[in-house]
Amino acid sequence: MQTIQEYIAQHKERFLNELIDLLKIPSVSADPAYNQDVLNTADMVKLQLEKAGCDKIEICETPGYPIVYGEKIIDPKLPTVLVYGHYDVQPADPIDLWDSPPFEPIIKKTETHPEGAIFARGACDDKGQMYMHVKALEYMTNTGNLPCNVKFMIEGEEEVGSESLAWFVPRNKEKLANDVILISDTGMIANSIPSITTGLRGLSYVEVEVTGPNRDLHSGLYGGAVANPINVLTKMIASLHDENNHITIPGFYDKVENLSREERDEMAKAPFSLENYKKSLEIDAIYGEKGYTTNERNSIRPTLDVNGIWGGYTGEGAKTVIASKAYAKISMRLVPNQEWREITELFKKHFESIAPKGVQVKVTPHHGGQGYVTPIDNIGYQAASKAYQETFGVTPIPQRSGGSIPIVALFEEELKSKTILMGFGLDSDAIHSPNEHFGVWNYLKGIETIPFFYKYFTELSK
Amino acid sequence: MQTIQEYIAQHKERFLNELIDLLKIPSVSADPAYNQDVLNTADMVKLQLEKAGCDKIEICETPGYPIVYGEKIIDPKLPTVLVYGHYDVQPADPIDLWDSPPFEPIIKKTETHPEGAIFARGACDDKGQMYMHVKALEYMTNTGNLPCNVKFMIEGEEEVGSESLAWFVPRNKEKLANDVILISDTGMIANSIPSITTGLRGLSYVEVEVTGPNRDLHSGLYGGAVANPINVLTKMIASLHDENNHITIPGFYDKVENLSREERDEMAKAPFSLENYKKSLEIDAIYGEKGYTTNERNSIRPTLDVNGIWGGYTGEGAKTVIASKAYAKISMRLVPNQEWREITELFKKHFESIAPKGVQVKVTPHHGGQGYVTPIDNIGYQAASKAYQETFGVTPIPQRSGGSIPIVALFEEELKSKTILMGFGLDSDAIHSPNEHFGVWNYLKGIETIPFFYKYFTELSK
Repeated sequence: MQTIQEYIAQHKERFLNELIDLLKIPSVSADPAYNQDVLNTADMVKLQLEKAGCDKIEICETPGYPIVYGEKIIDPKLPTVLVYGHYDVQPADPIDLWDSPPFEPIIKKTETHPEGAIFARGACDDKGQMYMHVKALEYMTNTGNLPCNVKFMIEGEEEVGSESLAWFVPRNKEKLANDVILISDTGMIANSIPSITTGLRGLSYVEVEVTGPNRDLHSGLYGGAVANPINVLTKMIASLHDENNHITIPGFYDKVENLSREERDEMAKAPFSLENYKKSLEIDAIYGEKGYTTNERNSIRPTLDVNGIWGGYTGEGAKTVIASKAYAKISMRLVPNQEWREITELFKKHFESIAPKGVQVKVTPHHGGQGYVTPIDNIGYQAASKAYQETFGVTPIPQRSGGSIPIVALFEEELKSKTILMGFGLDSDAIHSPNEHFGVWNYLKGIETIPFFYKYFTELSK
Repeated sequence: MQTIQEYIAQHKERFLNELIDLLKIPSVSADPAYNQDVLNTADMVKLQLEKAGCDKIEICETPGYPIVYGEKIIDPKLPTVLVYGHYDVQPADPIDLWDSPPFEPIIKKTETHPEGAIFARGACDDKGQMYMHVKALEYMTNTGNLPCNVKFMIEGEEEVGSESLAWFVPRNKEKLANDVILISDTGMIANSIPSITTGLRGLSYVEVEVTGPNRDLHSGLYGGAVANPINVLTKMIASLHDENNHITIPGFYDKVENLSREERDEMAKAPFSLENYKKSLEIDAIYGEKGYTTNERNSIRPTLDVNGIWGGYTGEGAKTVIASKAYAKISMRLVPNQEWREITELFKKHFESIAPKGVQVKVTPHHGGQGYVTPIDNIGYQAASKAYQETFGVTPIPQRSGGSIPIVALFEEELKSKTILMGFGLDSDAIHSPNEHFGVWNYLKGIETIPFFYKYFTELSK
């Protein structure tokens, strides 16, 4: 029987070309201008699931972008793995910072990826990592190595909050019934140090609008005499952190899970070089909440970041104007036990309360989601760990991630099953940034590792 | 001999149509895209000066946009009035807030302007007010009423700092030699309460750039662990004012002219309704430096306002990104005795000094200028005051303006002559804002009043 390694050696070129075709479609879910491209991507995913061996594939309509569903049920008595991924991508701007066009994938060698990396928006997040599962399925079905049932659910709104998925899942519990959920939408520490993400941060994303005078004003005639919405917005945002970079929103930390000294010591064992970290970002110093390490700040601690700000004259040259309105997009990363809707409410209440006289403030929640933790004694985690040992030759490290996959908490709530996060990307892959890429080695290693998860999960389920 | 009133009655329609043609050209000096339009506007001004009776007209080349020069010397022994104005305009954005296209002038009646107002970018600032002088000259030359010599100097970079004018004036002192400089680029209190601007604020305009990590980052993986340039920028800007809205830049107030109680009491006599002020801006409260009234805050006190801010994702929907860079345009209005270059230096030094570790800060000065004061015993002021009495029937009030016309200080320094600011616009004319307009009554009243200035200035010069 052909091994996965043999199969990959034989089909490697095609695996890469199929992914490149998928990456050429700009499926930016945040921007309505790409509406048709997002829909076309869903069709392409459907087609590929069919080719890979799914025997029941549908494009499931939702209030937003459709969800591609596919399944292969070989025996109802066997366990079922539900694979989740997303076919939408982040916006590519700032375009001018890309070395090659974001939707014209090219393979280039890098220091981290001597065997080459595919550069394109979505290469790693999440088209590349999602497609590993499609190719792993192709191997298992074509070679009679599929040991259990499999279901695929690939959505198109992950980058904008998965609202339609949250609508879809509760309405399709039977269709989605499973024993474990498998996702590759996270990273690992290094190609020589595989890790499995056991924790995710929650998210609350809001947009704020500060309105002062009813029109833009001449800064000479009115400057100093009326509240300037931009100056006011900067004061309000600045006040959201104190001098120790603690967030000042009343009640914000009330439900934060505080890790024990032991747990923090365990985390501290993960290899990390502050020098390399600073070097890779070209910063002279790190920054953050007092009393925590860098790895703690971006994983077990909640944060508040401005993701965008705008107001007034931003064009060429100078315009002496006081803008009528100023805006900001602000997101908070949350940790287990913080309830995102409650945090959104706390933010809204606080932000409105600190608005000075002379301006009106509007807070509009965008989306959010809960944090999540997988216990490492879960058989899903055990199966993943064994799979990495097979293909990497080392035991993967359990790791808390700073990122958010809000629907993982939703899955647990609605489908009562745990999610295993087998990520094959690297932090340096620049997801959400210009020049996003995914190592060719990582892509193929993922395809190689996934079938072992199915094997061990089926065995451990007996 | 035909009076100015008779002449206006006869040519009113043409006066309006000629101005409308001038307003149709988008001479936005701040935006290179309008380069040709700015040049075309200069040509149109030259043509109209010729028609109005100037006997020596030139387009004077400069390092930037040209200066239109015209003169009519009737007798070297008579005094000479130098008229200054500008043919460039502010950018029109935000375009979507205009009720009619900014460069398609239309006349509409308003509450303040029952006889109609011309709505267009530049209607009041400064095409309309500049053109009043061209039409006043036409009357004086066509009817043999020109009592002295006149020179026109109309520039095309006032809205971007008059750099080329600052280059031109010292190189053309003889050509520009005059006894008084006359400018209409300010406003008056109300149509029933004419006022003459006796003070102007200086200006320092800078752009700041804060750079954090070398690329945009995923706010989940890096949030809370690296300095976010937008958060840092808001903290830095917020710190520029203390809780009393005093500016915190060390040395900023050192040279500020402090008015006596008497002078402030005199100012306080100018009619002002706080209720109407708030109503017209639709704000529930005023704002500003503690210990000063609204009229003091926007005239005799220096200020610091953010005119524009931008960074990160500002498009549709949500993007969870930490931007690599954040920017702001910041201007400071200065009062007499503050030296703008020194203030710019103080800002730069201070702003760079408050940057936290983890970011790089760049401060780029845009332009600036000195404040200015005209004593009311100056014969130019006296002539202007008598002119208003002739046509308004009341004595105008001397008034400090919050605006800046940097070149007025330059004129005094280079040409050793005082400037008289005869403004006919109103604060409610929305200059620098959407729906800028200029009252038809004000336009014609300006044309009517200006010849009397020439008459009285010539008499008082004997």
